Amino acid sequence: MKQMTPLEELRHSCAHVLATAVLRLYPDTQLDIGPPTDTGFYYDFDSEHRFTNDDLIRIEEEMRKIAKENQKFERMEVSREEAVQLLKEFGQERYKLGRLDDIPEGEAISFYRNGEFIDLCAGTHVNYTKKIKAVKLLSIAGAYHRGDEKNKQLQRIYGTAFATKDELQEYLTMLEEAKKRDHRKIGKEMDLFSFDPENVGPGLALWHPKGTVIVEELEKLAKETEFEAGYERVRTPHLAKEKLYQTSGHLPYYEDSMYPAMEIVEDEGGEPVKYYLKAMNCPHHHKIFGATPKSYRDLPIRLAEYGACYRYEQSGELMGLMRVRAMQMNDAHIYCTEEQFGDEFRAVNDMYLKYFELFGIKKYLMRFSTHDPEKLGKKFVDEPELWKKTEDMVRQVLDESGIDYVEVPNEAAFYGPKIDVQVWSAIGREFTLATNQVDFAVPGRFGLTYTTSENKDATPLCIHRAPLGTHERFIGFLIEHFNGNFPSWLAPEQLRLLPVNDTFKEYADGIADQFKAKGFRVTVDGHSDKLGAKIRRAELERVPYMAVIGEKEKDSGNISIRSRINKSLEGTHSLEAFIQSLSEEVESRVLPDEYR
Amino acid sequence: MKQMTPLEELRHSCAHVLATAVLRLYPDTQLDIGPPTDTGFYYDFDSEHRFTNDDLIRIEEEMRKIAKENQKFERMEVSREEAVQLLKEFGQERYKLGRLDDIPEGEAISFYRNGEFIDLCAGTHVNYTKKIKAVKLLSIAGAYHRGDEKNKQLQRIYGTAFATKDELQEYLTMLEEAKKRDHRKIGKEMDLFSFDPENVGPGLALWHPKGTVIVEELEKLAKETEFEAGYERVRTPHLAKEKLYQTSGHLPYYEDSMYPAMEIVEDEGGEPVKYYLKAMNCPHHHKIFGATPKSYRDLPIRLAEYGACYRYEQSGELMGLMRVRAMQMNDAHIYCTEEQFGDEFRAVNDMYLKYFELFGIKKYLMRFSTHDPEKLGKKFVDEPELWKKTEDMVRQVLDESGIDYVEVPNEAAFYGPKIDVQVWSAIGREFTLATNQVDFAVPGRFGLTYTTSENKDATPLCIHRAPLGTHERFIGFLIEHFNGNFPSWLAPEQLRLLPVNDTFKEYADGIADQFKAKGFRVTVDGHSDKLGAKIRRAELERVPYMAVIGEKEKDSGNISIRSRINKSLEGTHSLEAFIQSLSEEVESRVLPDEYR
Repeated sequence: MKQMTPLEELRHSCAHVLATAVLRLYPDTQLDIGPPTDTGFYYDFDSEHRFTNDDLIRIEEEMRKIAKENQKFERMEVSREEAVQLLKEFGQERYKLGRLDDIPEGEAISFYRNGEFIDLCAGTHVNYTKKIKAVKLLSIAGAYHRGDEKNKQLQRIYGTAFATKDELQEYLTMLEEAKKRDHRKIGKEMDLFSFDPENVGPGLALWHPKGTVIVEELEKLAKETEFEAGYERVRTPHLAKEKLYQTSGHLPYYEDSMYPAMEIVEDEGGEPVKYYLKAMNCPHHHKIFGATPKSYRDLPIRLAEYGACYRYEQSGELMGLMRVRAMQMNDAHIYCTEEQFGDEFRAVNDMYLKYFELFGIKKYLMRFSTHDPEKLGKKFVDEPELWKKTEDMVRQVLDESGIDYVEVPNEAAFYGPKIDVQVWSAIGREFTLATNQVDFAVPGRFGLTYTTSENKDATPLCIHRAPLGTHERFIGFLIEHFNGNFPSWLAPEQLRLLPVNDTFKEYADGIADQFKAKGFRVTVDGHSDKLGAKIRRAELERVPYMAVIGEKEKDSGNISIRSRINKSLEGTHSLEAFIQSLSEEVESRVLPDEYR
Repeated sequence: MKQMTPLEELRHSCAHVLATAVLRLYPDTQLDIGPPTDTGFYYDFDSEHRFTNDDLIRIEEEMRKIAKENQKFERMEVSREEAVQLLKEFGQERYKLGRLDDIPEGEAISFYRNGEFIDLCAGTHVNYTKKIKAVKLLSIAGAYHRGDEKNKQLQRIYGTAFATKDELQEYLTMLEEAKKRDHRKIGKEMDLFSFDPENVGPGLALWHPKGTVIVEELEKLAKETEFEAGYERVRTPHLAKEKLYQTSGHLPYYEDSMYPAMEIVEDEGGEPVKYYLKAMNCPHHHKIFGATPKSYRDLPIRLAEYGACYRYEQSGELMGLMRVRAMQMNDAHIYCTEEQFGDEFRAVNDMYLKYFELFGIKKYLMRFSTHDPEKLGKKFVDEPELWKKTEDMVRQVLDESGIDYVEVPNEAAFYGPKIDVQVWSAIGREFTLATNQVDFAVPGRFGLTYTTSENKDATPLCIHRAPLGTHERFIGFLIEHFNGNFPSWLAPEQLRLLPVNDTFKEYADGIADQFKAKGFRVTVDGHSDKLGAKIRRAELERVPYMAVIGEKEKDSGNISIRSRINKSLEGTHSLEAFIQSLSEEVESRVLPDEYR
């Protein structure tokens, strides 16, 4: 039995109360399961009745009533036979008997009772339903029993709960704001990207010119940062033979997440060869490391690539840029000796922190997953010394840097400890952006070696890291984080000139050319509508700077600036002065006012 | 009968003389065909005897004897029956009878006789064998009869011939030099790229860090150039559904040149959907153009992408970087009105010229392929006005710019006129680098439109252009062109510091850091061997600048420069002065001495 946090207990109790309420209102309902989640809880129901949003209000009302009844949560441990009997009596056999079968022989079987309701449940719960003071049902979605498309689709009711009404309200406000900032909506308003599921394919983003500006500015940033940090860049093709993924060990475990193979008969009469689109860049990078002999003098070697990877996610799981099938990863693999590992890991960590600051990410958490010594040689590669050494070093770096982190034992990868990086957007929504992994095992599988100073062969350690994750997810996050109001260095269009009427269009074109010659992304609104309409359009498209061009500006040679991101630059400037200020802002990658 | 140029006639005559000589020396040989090529001629033989390089010397000797015999080339037109009879008498039935069958009924059947030799041949030839004054047999290769792997492999003897001995010598010197400059050899010495046919796949280059520097510097150049020229960049995935290539018309005509499809059942119980790796970027770009409404105000729209394309070339045709299966194209599609076409084409042309100058390409030729008015609606899309208008404009731009070009009627693409760009490397070898096409047809197939100023729908013209071709072929060309001695802006490593012994290594590291802080690509040779060995290593790896670091340099704070590309920078400089000079050279993308 896993100990829940107090908030998880509260939410899990809400799930039971939700089921209690549903059975009161719709007694024919069959229950499946109702766990807490990172942001609330849900319960899966099988009912002839199709739940509507209006029903949610009624059910929520009933839940509040049950809370007021102040039912006690009671745990009962029973035998398997008693459990079957209880479920039969309670009329919940359709799914619960199967769930009972999942409990291995010898493990405790427990029920929780509250009022007239009982549920097969490992726990844990709050003591009384009165503890439920701030609960909200949010939505209804279809969900296959056990997540398997072959099973029946159940109705999942999502809700959330917090210890206090204020916290709940804060969360609901955040959800409301997140809806307004939905990257799919803003992406359309700003003309950043599109999908064409019918002709190109689901989950395959087409980056329009304005979205590509963001993509390429991020790449420029990463290339500069990584050049300074001693990385070297490589380029690798987007496919490889089956054999490469057999060596890496990705096949067959990963095959379901890859596009199916292309089968080719390379030689007349020969066996067909399978080629796969790459789902990760590491095997190609390992091949580059291994292509020429390496010595201890060459290490550390840091190979970086914005590699496009392809993963075949189920179409039901695709969601805008957040869950796609084609992703461009800010990937790198660092090959180093054991002695170099600490410094390399520290440098990677520093890079994360630098990026957080640059993007105004104020809340972040590293989940540090470690091994369980009892499972060496089973769940974890049997290198007790290496595990201890690298985990100690990682822990030390995290402690020294003062980074907020949690350590999660027994959740490391097979081949080494890993760190998942969670960040919160400006409105407080959580995103998992990147992982950072140590790899003891795969360099050996590829036979990668370097010559030590004693002229012996040794296998390097490998660090997989991707601080900016994928373009797709990171830009999706940034859209919400900035509400589309990107800092000027990232803004697809940095300045829009708004001639007050057609008379000033030519003059505005001349001004635009001066900005373009300095490398700025600038346009002139050439429409014939009114200034107000031009301003509204520029605002909808989130252009950070607007310059109204009329008689006064033409006569003086000055420009009048409105800004969405930097109030200190609003007002009238000489052309030269404004170009200078904007250059500095772009070059220093300054954040918008409210993120500083 | 196609009229041959005098040089083609000479070379074709050499092919007959080669066959004459072979039959004298190896009478059992069966002949297939012997045409002239762009650089010489060949003849395909079927013989029990395996030809060796020593045999080539003997055969060449015999050819010179035949030249001295001054045999007359005589044309004979015969009936089909007489032709069969002649071939039987001459003992050449195995392949020639099939070749005879290829001649359509009603066309003239001709033989050419010289001395004891006759050959089924459309001609044309020189008058007498004495005209052959400068001929050289070059190599032997296997070649399937009619290029089909299912047929017998014949022995192809290649040779070349020129009007004068001097020209021949010049060509042979060029070949010798080209061998030394082979991009595969230099690519290995410089550690630029590798292939791993077994694990990754044939024709799929892995770009090592040093090669990637060149790739990314070229991209930087193209991005800067294209930003100035008003292009916008896009990013598109590397695959698409079958449907996209049905719309574009590439399937089924192009299918053999594509990797085979990935077949996916997207929906439970649904039909499998085919996905293809993209072999060209245009369909994806058309989809981006079409994703949002366009008005005449938006045109021209120039969408650029370094898109990676995949083409399934036969493995026998793969050759280093020159013929690959994965290629990164400097691609762009310009959507414009008919009125805008002339200016757009001129700008594209100017971009080519700018690039030629930047890379020191002094000899180039544009092959301008036009339509044949008699084949409108058949071989060429039936738009007589558009053909005339665009061809006239292209011709005018070419004339005005003074570019060397040839016009080739009847060789345009189905959908519009095209230009193939041929360039010659510094040693005089010819490469076809890029094509530039006008497209009347495909925008219509994709239903692409813009709203005219009269508020009507119109279809834009599309120009496909790729001035730098693919990274793979262009870098292959540049390696030969520069013999690996790249200008400093392109050089993978710009400066190598050579400490005279280990004592000065630390000091050299400090100097290197100062260069790195300015963004230069610099290394320190940390090996313990002698200075001479360090210099030889840097030379083999084609590092353009070397700085020896010893007592004198440490005491004075100066550095002593050796250069492979810029003699004016050799000698002793203060650190600041050299950094300044090198910065200017890199920023202005200055060519090495001998290319200026």
